[in-house]
Amino acid sequence: MALVNEYFLRLTESYLFSDIAKKVNAYKLTHPKGNVISLGIGDVTQPLCPAVIKAMHEAVEEMATSAHFHGYGPEHGYDFLREAIVKHDYLSRGVHIDPSEVFINDGAKSDLGNIGDIVRWDNSVGLTDPVYPVYIDSNAMIGRAGTFADGKWSNITYMPTTEANGFDPELPDHRVDMIYLCYPNNPTGTVLTKKQLKRWVDYALKNDSLILFDSAYESYIQDDDIPHSIYEIRGAKKCAIEFRSYSKTAGFTGIRCGYTVIPKEVTATTFDGTQHVELNRLWERRQATKFNGASYISQRAAAAIYTPEGKQQIRETISYYMQNAAIMREHLQQKGLTVYGGTNAPYLWVKTPEGKTSWQFFDELLYSSGVVCTPGVGFGPSGEGFVRLTAFGKREDCIEAMNRIVG
Amino acid sequence: MALVNEYFLRLTESYLFSDIAKKVNAYKLTHPKGNVISLGIGDVTQPLCPAVIKAMHEAVEEMATSAHFHGYGPEHGYDFLREAIVKHDYLSRGVHIDPSEVFINDGAKSDLGNIGDIVRWDNSVGLTDPVYPVYIDSNAMIGRAGTFADGKWSNITYMPTTEANGFDPELPDHRVDMIYLCYPNNPTGTVLTKKQLKRWVDYALKNDSLILFDSAYESYIQDDDIPHSIYEIRGAKKCAIEFRSYSKTAGFTGIRCGYTVIPKEVTATTFDGTQHVELNRLWERRQATKFNGASYISQRAAAAIYTPEGKQQIRETISYYMQNAAIMREHLQQKGLTVYGGTNAPYLWVKTPEGKTSWQFFDELLYSSGVVCTPGVGFGPSGEGFVRLTAFGKREDCIEAMNRIVG
Repeated sequence: MALVNEYFLRLTESYLFSDIAKKVNAYKLTHPKGNVISLGIGDVTQPLCPAVIKAMHEAVEEMATSAHFHGYGPEHGYDFLREAIVKHDYLSRGVHIDPSEVFINDGAKSDLGNIGDIVRWDNSVGLTDPVYPVYIDSNAMIGRAGTFADGKWSNITYMPTTEANGFDPELPDHRVDMIYLCYPNNPTGTVLTKKQLKRWVDYALKNDSLILFDSAYESYIQDDDIPHSIYEIRGAKKCAIEFRSYSKTAGFTGIRCGYTVIPKEVTATTFDGTQHVELNRLWERRQATKFNGASYISQRAAAAIYTPEGKQQIRETISYYMQNAAIMREHLQQKGLTVYGGTNAPYLWVKTPEGKTSWQFFDELLYSSGVVCTPGVGFGPSGEGFVRLTAFGKREDCIEAMNRIVG
Repeated sequence: MALVNEYFLRLTESYLFSDIAKKVNAYKLTHPKGNVISLGIGDVTQPLCPAVIKAMHEAVEEMATSAHFHGYGPEHGYDFLREAIVKHDYLSRGVHIDPSEVFINDGAKSDLGNIGDIVRWDNSVGLTDPVYPVYIDSNAMIGRAGTFADGKWSNITYMPTTEANGFDPELPDHRVDMIYLCYPNNPTGTVLTKKQLKRWVDYALKNDSLILFDSAYESYIQDDDIPHSIYEIRGAKKCAIEFRSYSKTAGFTGIRCGYTVIPKEVTATTFDGTQHVELNRLWERRQATKFNGASYISQRAAAAIYTPEGKQQIRETISYYMQNAAIMREHLQQKGLTVYGGTNAPYLWVKTPEGKTSWQFFDELLYSSGVVCTPGVGFGPSGEGFVRLTAFGKREDCIEAMNRIVG
């Protein structure tokens, strides 16, 4: 019989959001009249902007005619989109990226999950804790995370990101091969200044580490001194891969489009140390073999957000969500809760009152208010004692939820 | 420094279709007035059918309204599509598949490439030769293919599919863990009868092998006794995973949607043989971690092909391509060439005249006729002495190409 990949069997049985769904379903069964408001999963609620809708209708029409039909696109994305990204997302911030360093995908999760294909299975991994579970699970699936015991994986260095260190995690006291960073951070909603981020780039350069930088939430940054891209830090083009998504920038969670930047200078080495291999080239090959490009319609939709109308319209939606965040922060603080995040990110990281655990406070919010949050501990051990609320709800739901929560 | 996955370095440098593109570009530079007709890459040319266009416009409109907006969909696909597949693609042929056994994806290439994630890296692999290169390269990337020498990989059993054996490959004379089969076949355009396919299922059941069955071209089958799904063979639900694509069925190469069927009975075992693990469950977990669902618009597009209008319309387009195939077959045969395929598949497998190699005949067709084919040897050693022509061109191009080819 074919042998199974036993690393999969080491994974803890269920996925955070399935556990939440089960609890919510149980609540709904016993409270059939209750109106549950979900501020748990980070999914958007506002419709796509008119510029995107128009571009998609046009793209659909193209597919209806022989003259303008589009079949297989380039695996790495259409030039019209790669060039728009280079110009609007990078050049506008003084960062020079070549279009061939941009890989269009069907969403950041795919690339964050698959990027491990091109590096050795036993590289050591460092990540901030709490963390987006995909970073861990995707490494566990290939054995890179080691074995799981007492809530931690043996080959992962957890870098606590906590109230105690001001959500500015300390550098590891030893060398790690690969480091995941997500800023603005999911789940804590906190950010790093340029100076704080520079410490990580310097560490990576000094230790020859590879940084996997997830900036899916960069468009929510409001403060001027917060970097949107890791490439705003000198030297990062030698050591960092950046993951971007249109899911939160433009509400594309159902459209599926994002991109990954791999500068040509980023390399990894062979086991004997003799060869430095460009990761850009390996990823190009990986994608040409295991991916067939993102939908033409999704790519046209993405390009539309770089038009003047598109830019203005997505800015309005982002502003809507950030107003939600401000309203929620204020209400929660008035009710005596300690709240982090929500000023440069669409997530609020709320400290549980009276030393409750994350799941206790989750249950309390659900049963006393019908509000669904995400238990912080679901994102890792250092998330204990917190819950995450998203600002992606509809305004009326956010307000209603806040009114229901009694401090 | 992070260590690279050195298995990538074992891959032969370039991908078949890049080599072809380079040769075609060189030809164009020296023949600027020449009109090149490409019958090489298997990409469709006909517009999407009206039912699909209508469904996509409607889906786009939904995304424009708060009430009907769709964010993240289920990672494994919407029920409306999974249920349509079960009913129209399987039940209609007497095969019972549960919707939970169907995984919607962004195209068969992704799943064919990624399926290896859930099985052990050192399973042995068997495949028909010539073959779709993705099967090999995706295994090589994780080390499963072994080392490459003299045109072959050490851990792969090549099963020649040749004129000599009537394109009905012999079973391996030893046990292999995983077997890739593609019927109707890419690249040879040949098919297996139920009786012929049954030998493979029986082999798999006897040897506890896993069959990876690619039926991307099933909608091109014209003859009644040719199975569309491997599950039409008794016992196959215990040993086979089936990959389907809308790319060729409905012209979705630019839309990106397909699906994979993993019956719950299909298992793989742990190294010590003590545990039989459902591959359905592992794939569910793999996709939930590394994939975020196919575009809502693409899924609505796919569902539209199961409506009465949609069925009729895609049948017409398939018929158009199969008429191309018939025209091409007749012309080529009249010119004294030996042609296989093209009666139950959109590919023609043309024997090179006078013992020429595949690449020699490729060059000849390009320089004498401006016609681009795919050299058979690019699909594996047993493809030598053949070229593949696709029937996916526009009618006028197919006819023009045939007129240019002098026997």
